[in-house]
Amino acid sequence: MRVLRLTAGTTVRVFNGRGGEFDATIDTANRSGAQVRVRVRREPQSEARVAVTLVQAVLKGDKMDGVVRDAVMMGVAAIQPVVTARSEVPLTSLRRGHRRERWLRIAVSSAKQSGRAVVPLVLEPRPFDEVTAALGDSFAASQVLMFVEPSAGALAISPGSLDLEPPGACAILTGPEGGWTPEEVARGCDIGTLVGLGSRTLRGDSVALVAMAALLTHWRAL
Amino acid sequence: MRVLRLTAGTTVRVFNGRGGEFDATIDTANRSGAQVRVRVRREPQSEARVAVTLVQAVLKGDKMDGVVRDAVMMGVAAIQPVVTARSEVPLTSLRRGHRRERWLRIAVSSAKQSGRAVVPLVLEPRPFDEVTAALGDSFAASQVLMFVEPSAGALAISPGSLDLEPPGACAILTGPEGGWTPEEVARGCDIGTLVGLGSRTLRGDSVALVAMAALLTHWRAL
Repeated sequence: MRVLRLTAGTTVRVFNGRGGEFDATIDTANRSGAQVRVRVRREPQSEARVAVTLVQAVLKGDKMDGVVRDAVMMGVAAIQPVVTARSEVPLTSLRRGHRRERWLRIAVSSAKQSGRAVVPLVLEPRPFDEVTAALGDSFAASQVLMFVEPSAGALAISPGSLDLEPPGACAILTGPEGGWTPEEVARGCDIGTLVGLGSRTLRGDSVALVAMAALLTHWRAL
Repeated sequence: MRVLRLTAGTTVRVFNGRGGEFDATIDTANRSGAQVRVRVRREPQSEARVAVTLVQAVLKGDKMDGVVRDAVMMGVAAIQPVVTARSEVPLTSLRRGHRRERWLRIAVSSAKQSGRAVVPLVLEPRPFDEVTAALGDSFAASQVLMFVEPSAGALAISPGSLDLEPPGACAILTGPEGGWTPEEVARGCDIGTLVGLGSRTLRGDSVALVAMAALLTHWRAL
């Protein structure tokens, strides 16, 4: 209403965030909002063949905003922010700052921009131990992929060495700026597979995007 | 000197941007710089197996900064900024604003951060027609990959359908926010192959990173 200055009678596309996408016509419009009349249901863009849960260590400043935006654009199914030993942001300050609500708004906006009719779940941030315990219960070891830095990469395989047959669902773990602790890597080894992304050091806020692009390419699921 | 407050006698790692990386000791240091004594030559991180030239349509605002930073991190060999029909930034203003010098500084800084001993070339921005003529002379059609949006994707193949054997070198073309014009896509078809990155619309400043991650994964060259 404010930016595009749309008026009654204009045809728009609306979506409900749960996979429904529709043509609609604006009935009434003012600066605070609009009422639309929903007309034809559209065939929405198909969702990714692999339901990826991104378990991302909370990053400093506003860097998580970009990670959420990129992951939604790449078709992530759910985002679980996790507080690790080297995360410099404590859980209490994330809750006080209503960070989850902010990330959810970014997820809605990124779904719109990339033409997805589904807004992924953005879960409440939780501690590493809780999250990995839950992952161990919900996923087979072959479906949990912990991405590690080159320095921790002795035991890691490259995405190209994973099974070519895509799993129906998987969880990918991406670390904080300072990297995982050895204990966290050992835990990742217990519940899943260590994966490396080559010899270069990637910026913390780009690992999730590179990891998703690499996995979806390998599985022919882009 | 200023941030880390290093003093004479400290051991540091230095690189010359052309593949040489050395251990060195600080001889003299003050706020404006330092003199170091170069000691042992180190084995630098190996460069990517495929020499990728990124031909990126100039994006608005400071969005090119992120593209340069990401591409260097992913191991790009050269970056050729290109002005297309829908680029909203004219060549003259790029030159007046010393944008190439800025991108080069970002390339140096990103090489340092990602541990590369080679700083890729950042070429002078040029018009689309000039650049594509030069590409047609220097690369075989199988080595020129134009990345197109889902809407232009009818003729495009996915990265997974490219030859599994990596070329020694390739050029990838990534478009401006508004996309390529049909004439530009036709030109891309003449000199190379159209490649799509799935059904979702990617943000303009993330296409190069996703494209490089996808190609290097496909070629097992990450």
